Amino acid sequence: MASIITLTTDFGLQDHYVSAMKAAILAIAPDARLVDISHNIPPQDIMAGAWVVRNATMLYPPNTVHLVVIDPGVGTDRSPVAIKIEDQFFVGPDNGIFSLIGEDFEYEAVVLNKEKFWRKERSNTFHGRDIFAPVAAHLSNGLNISHLGSPLEKLVTFRWAIPISDKDGIQGWIVHIDRFGNLISNIPEALIKEALNLSQLRIYVGNTILKNIVQTYGDVPDGEPAAYIGSSGTLEVAINKGNAKEMLGVEKGAQISIINQK
Amino acid sequence: MASIITLTTDFGLQDHYVSAMKAAILAIAPDARLVDISHNIPPQDIMAGAWVVRNATMLYPPNTVHLVVIDPGVGTDRSPVAIKIEDQFFVGPDNGIFSLIGEDFEYEAVVLNKEKFWRKERSNTFHGRDIFAPVAAHLSNGLNISHLGSPLEKLVTFRWAIPISDKDGIQGWIVHIDRFGNLISNIPEALIKEALNLSQLRIYVGNTILKNIVQTYGDVPDGEPAAYIGSSGTLEVAINKGNAKEMLGVEKGAQISIINQK
Amino acid sequence: MASIITLTTDFGLQDHYVSAMKAAILAIAPDARLVDISHNIPPQDIMAGAWVVRNATMLYPPNTVHLVVIDPGVGTDRSPVAIKIEDQFFVGPDNGIFSLIGEDFEYEAVVLNKEKFWRKERSNTFHGRDIFAPVAAHLSNGLNISHLGSPLEKLVTFRWAIPISDKDGIQGWIVHIDRFGNLISNIPEALIKEALNLSQLRIYVGNTILKNIVQTYGDVPDGEPAAYIGSSGTLEVAINKGNAKEMLGVEKGAQISIINQK
Repeated sequence: MASIITLTTDFGLQDHYVSAMKAAILAIAPDARLVDISHNIPPQDIMAGAWVVRNATMLYPPNTVHLVVIDPGVGTDRSPVAIKIEDQFFVGPDNGIFSLIGEDFEYEAVVLNKEKFWRKERSNTFHGRDIFAPVAAHLSNGLNISHLGSPLEKLVTFRWAIPISDKDGIQGWIVHIDRFGNLISNIPEALIKEALNLSQLRIYVGNTILKNIVQTYGDVPDGEPAAYIGSSGTLEVAINKGNAKEMLGVEKGAQISIINQK
Repeated sequence: MASIITLTTDFGLQDHYVSAMKAAILAIAPDARLVDISHNIPPQDIMAGAWVVRNATMLYPPNTVHLVVIDPGVGTDRSPVAIKIEDQFFVGPDNGIFSLIGEDFEYEAVVLNKEKFWRKERSNTFHGRDIFAPVAAHLSNGLNISHLGSPLEKLVTFRWAIPISDKDGIQGWIVHIDRFGNLISNIPEALIKEALNLSQLRIYVGNTILKNIVQTYGDVPDGEPAAYIGSSGTLEVAINKGNAKEMLGVEKGAQISIINQK
Repeated sequence: MASIITLTTDFGLQDHYVSAMKAAILAIAPDARLVDISHNIPPQDIMAGAWVVRNATMLYPPNTVHLVVIDPGVGTDRSPVAIKIEDQFFVGPDNGIFSLIGEDFEYEAVVLNKEKFWRKERSNTFHGRDIFAPVAAHLSNGLNISHLGSPLEKLVTFRWAIPISDKDGIQGWIVHIDRFGNLISNIPEALIKEALNLSQLRIYVGNTILKNIVQTYGDVPDGEPAAYIGSSGTLEVAINKGNAKEMLGVEKGAQISIINQK
């Protein structure tokens, strides 16, 4: 019985690309269960993909295979890889999309170079269909990862901006803005508890200043901004029943500062 | 064998939220079959969600569980609920999303308060992952709904605008506009047959007047408007090979009147 | 055990239409595996649907049923059909959506006219739910196609623009532009090899001229245009890490010419 295979791409759903990958999987692992994570990663936005991979994958049942194809360098010298982290598998280009998950966990990785596990006819522009999907299907069927290629010591990682903490407070960044316009920062809950006096702080983001951290945006009146620890475990800022991105004038990459009030 | 679980949310598909709910389901009910109904409900639009729930759920096989998460009040005092209607189950916040289905059918409902069926780590902003998805998975596994919480007499319902009928005709509203720009009213076929002389009527909507009800938009020339009984069982207005919303200048919530001609 | 059923429509995912088709399938073939190909075909764009069908379907495992519903003429006199091509099945309206696949392969087709395989209650505007989905489910369950209707000699086909080749070169068209803005032509690799001197050619498209055909867009510097044989087997033009549609000012239907340099 094949295991679950998830799919994360920047292909969108108006073209045939996602379907071609699914067909390539099902030809090898006909009983694999396919779960779409997202096909709406902004085109070629590797770090947006890395963020979704970080948040969406480690909760899946044992032996789930995560196929991740955001691949602007397809056909050039970036390596195709397969990775094992705890009881989860990952397959995709080694171009930074596994940056965040690779920093948080120990991993075992191989460079894919055993062509017998690939599609026979191969294009230069669609390794998702021709290499990654077949390899994911073989992993789902139970093939040991070591058969797929040669050991790789170190994945390519782009360092996610790390929040800066000193006696005055914490300086972080908005690393994701979700569909609701909620601003998701890279400041983890543990750092806030360690570095800050929770009863006396100021949070500066966009055109607003917040004076405390609440449990949820529902704790403030409609239309008001709220800072809280979000479901990804980091500080978020939202407007209750509103769109923080628009109302606070904040774009991805903006600074967010928490200052201790002495 | 776990039953089918459908998912309806306003989460969109660019974030990891839908995937996190699927992972939470599959951790408890690994063989549940997942069917996405829609993740593109307009953000926080409870009545748009209620409309999709009304039209999409009751046709599913017995014991299907419908997970519906449009939840602007997450973390506040709105109740989490599970509902049984005929041979279908529903799980989500009791905030009006079950308004339409709750008016059309007898139901048995419980307020979810048995934490042992929830995720162990819980956030204040993502009950979809932490409460609703695990509960849906347990129902899919066959758990009796009565074990999940305490009986609830009455669901929160927002009354859908009810069409007004008198001797002059019927006054209704456009309650949904679909991807094609078709205008879907709340005037049911039965009311039209009862209240109107079908051979002598005028339909007023937006900037146009229609003189009869046809079988399908294909019955009128290209570019012309047509009124017909749609696939949801209510009066619709469309432009054959065109977009009625744009061409007739009609928004959701607009009036539609059918007047008897004596 | 029911076979895989794929779904391709122009319904979008904000309405309940796709879900209603899935419910109609699962009522007849409860263990059918559903694979969404695309629901974002531009509304009523038959040829865009034909393109996706051509590229996405023939790779699937034997006995897969492809349900294709782009159906602007629903309820009029266009015929509902089922088709067998090699070991794949197709179900949908005979309005041109099977044009490309019908030109490339031998087929066996029937006009659907056996109402006992349809939904009992039928609307005039949603044959996807009421006719095509139930028929696809019966095929998935193993029903022989000949039981579904009467033999049909010839499918409706709109001729895809065929590239013109002479001693000076090849004249083709951009038949699809994908999410990345890549320009996909109707000029197949075989025709290029046959008609052209690969070392001495000029490719004219939009506001640019290209002097050779490379392996992949990664072979040219960032921001530069590249011509290559794409994953669909035809000539494509892309900008490395850019959007060719926008940067070259090209719309679907534009000319692309390859001229031999003597």
